[in-house]
Amino acid sequence: MRIVLDAMGGDYAPRVTVEGAVETVNETGDIEVVLIGQEGLIQEELRQKRYPPERITVRHAPQVVAMNEPVSTAVRRKRDSSIRLGIEMVKAGEAHAFVSAGHSGATMAFALLLLGKSEGVDRPAIAATMPTLKGRFVLIDAGANVDSEPTNLLQFALMGNAYARAVLGVQSPRVALLSIGEEDIKGNELTKEAFRLIKDTDLNFVGNIEGKDIFTGEVDVLVCDGFIGNVALKISEGLAETILKMLKREIADIATGRLAYLFMKPALKNFKKKTDYAEYGGAPLLGIRGTCIISHGRSTSKAIRNALKTAARFARLGVNDLISSELARYGEASPVTFDEPVVQNRR
Amino acid sequence: MRIVLDAMGGDYAPRVTVEGAVETVNETGDIEVVLIGQEGLIQEELRQKRYPPERITVRHAPQVVAMNEPVSTAVRRKRDSSIRLGIEMVKAGEAHAFVSAGHSGATMAFALLLLGKSEGVDRPAIAATMPTLKGRFVLIDAGANVDSEPTNLLQFALMGNAYARAVLGVQSPRVALLSIGEEDIKGNELTKEAFRLIKDTDLNFVGNIEGKDIFTGEVDVLVCDGFIGNVALKISEGLAETILKMLKREIADIATGRLAYLFMKPALKNFKKKTDYAEYGGAPLLGIRGTCIISHGRSTSKAIRNALKTAARFARLGVNDLISSELARYGEASPVTFDEPVVQNRR
Repeated sequence: MRIVLDAMGGDYAPRVTVEGAVETVNETGDIEVVLIGQEGLIQEELRQKRYPPERITVRHAPQVVAMNEPVSTAVRRKRDSSIRLGIEMVKAGEAHAFVSAGHSGATMAFALLLLGKSEGVDRPAIAATMPTLKGRFVLIDAGANVDSEPTNLLQFALMGNAYARAVLGVQSPRVALLSIGEEDIKGNELTKEAFRLIKDTDLNFVGNIEGKDIFTGEVDVLVCDGFIGNVALKISEGLAETILKMLKREIADIATGRLAYLFMKPALKNFKKKTDYAEYGGAPLLGIRGTCIISHGRSTSKAIRNALKTAARFARLGVNDLISSELARYGEASPVTFDEPVVQNRR
Repeated sequence: MRIVLDAMGGDYAPRVTVEGAVETVNETGDIEVVLIGQEGLIQEELRQKRYPPERITVRHAPQVVAMNEPVSTAVRRKRDSSIRLGIEMVKAGEAHAFVSAGHSGATMAFALLLLGKSEGVDRPAIAATMPTLKGRFVLIDAGANVDSEPTNLLQFALMGNAYARAVLGVQSPRVALLSIGEEDIKGNELTKEAFRLIKDTDLNFVGNIEGKDIFTGEVDVLVCDGFIGNVALKISEGLAETILKMLKREIADIATGRLAYLFMKPALKNFKKKTDYAEYGGAPLLGIRGTCIISHGRSTSKAIRNALKTAARFARLGVNDLISSELARYGEASPVTFDEPVVQNRR
C-alpha cells in the first residue's frame, strides 16, 4: 500500500511529517510512504533517521499552499504545490491514498478537481471522529460544505453509515441528526426536511439529537451541515482545552494542589490519550474517487502516523466504492449542481 | 422590585422554585416575589419555610405548560397557565419582571404575544452568559430564532452590545461573529452578509471568531443564529459534563486515584462554581417590552435565586429601553415580518 504524504502540510512540517512517515514504515509491514514537497528540506530531515530505504521515497514539489491562502488563489496559482502534485499521483495510480495536515480547503478543492466525485454523490463531506463516554462517533460533515441542502444531509447520512460500518466496524450504526430538540418538528428548515428524507431510508435512524447528548455514546454517526459541524468540532476542541487549563489553574491555587497533581498525573495522561485527536488519524474526505485524508493542522508525528494507517485501511477497504454502492441503492443523485468547493481551513 | 416567578417551571418545581424565592427575599432587601402556579402545591412548600410574609405572595394559575408540549398547542390551550398569567402580570404593571425555568418556547411565545417587541426589534433573542478562561461572554441568540436573516444578526449584535454594557458593565464590548474562519470571506451566506452589516456600525466589532477560540476570553458578545447558538450552548454543556465524568473515571482507575481525588476536591469545587450555569442567573429575552428571564430546566434553588436577582437588575436598569434607543440609532428596523415564534425548549 503506497501513501503519498504532503510533507509540507501542518504547523510543524516538514519535521513531524517526516518523523511520522519514518515511524509508520518502521512500525508496519505493508505501508510505503512517498514524501512530497521541497526535496532539500525533506532530505535534510530524513538524513538522521533510520528506516528501510525502499519504503520511503521523496518526490519534489516546488510550491507550498500557505495556511491562510484563499482556496481560489491556491487552485489557480499553486499548480506545483505538494497538495496538487500529491493528489495527481493518486489520480495517476502511482499512490493508493493522499494524506495532508495542510490547507484542508485546498486539499478538498484539488481532490474534487482532479479525482472527481464518487458516483451518486452531490457533495463530498469530511468525516471527523470524536470521542464519547463509551467510544466514539463520526461527525459528518465536519466542514466541507456550508449552506447544505436537505438532500446533501441525506447523502451525508448514507456516506457516514457506510464509513462507520466499513472502517469503525459498527454493524448497524445509529445515525442521528444534530438539532435543537428531539422531536421531529424541532430544528430549522434544513434539519426538518432532512429528518423526513433520512427517516424514509432503511438506515438505523434514531432521530434528532441535541448538542448536550452527543458525547454520551448513544450515536455512531452524527449528521449536520458543514458550518454547524465545523463550529461543533472546534467548540469541542476549544472547550476541552479550556476546561483542562481551568482545572489545572484551580488545582495550582489550592494548598494540596501539588500533591493532587502528582497523584492524578497518570489519570490525566490516560484522559488525554483517549481524547487526543492524534489518536483518530485524521478525517477522510468521503464521496471522492480516491482516498484523501485530512489531518489536523497541529498534527504531531503520532497524528501523522495514525493518518497514514487510516489512509491505508480506507484504501484497502475501498470505502469510496462502498459509498457509491450504498448511494446507488437510493437511486440517482438529485440534480444539485456543485459550485466551487467551499471547504474551510480546519486549522 | 416585584418579580413574578413561575413556581411550576423546571424539573424540580415547585420545590426548588419556592426555595429559591424564599432564599431571595431572605438575602435581599428590595425584592418581592409573586409565586404563580398551583396554589395548593405552592402553599405546601411554603408552609415549613421562614420568610418575611409581606414579600412573598401566591397567585393561583390552574394550568401548567408541560416541557414536551408544542409551542402552538401551549399558546392555544394553556391560557390559564403559570407562564401566561405570570407574563400577563408584567403587562398589567403588577410585576416588574417574569422568571421561568419552564418551557422556554412557551415563555417566548407568550412574551411576544402579550408584551410585544421593543421598538426597532424584528426578532427578540435569548442572551446566554458563558464562562471563559478570563471571565464570561454573552452568546446571542442562544435559541430564540432559527433561520435568521443577516439583519437579525445585526440586531442581535446591537442588543448584545447594549446588554453587555448595561448588565455586565463592559465599557466597550468586543463583539464577534461565530464563524468557521477568521477572514471576512469565510463562513456561510448568512455570516458573510452579517459581517458586512455589523462592520458598518460603530460597535467594537472584532470580526469572525472560530469555535475553538470562544472560551479564551477575547470576546464579550458572540453573535450567531439561534440554531447554531443553541447547538453551541448545549454542546458546551454536554462536553463539560462528559469531560468531568471521564476525568473522574480515569482518576478512579489509577492506584493513586483516591488520594488524588481527595487532594483535588476543593479545586473541583471551585471549578464547578466558576462554570456552573446556576451562577449566571438565567438568560434574558432581549427585545421584548418587559423583562423575561429564562432559566435552565434543571435549575437549582441557587439558579432560581440568581435569576430573580438578574431579573431585578435588568428591570431596574431598563435594559430593553436601552436596547430600543441603541437600535433607534441605526434607523428604522427593516420590514422583516415576524411569524410564529420558533423558540425551542432549552431543556
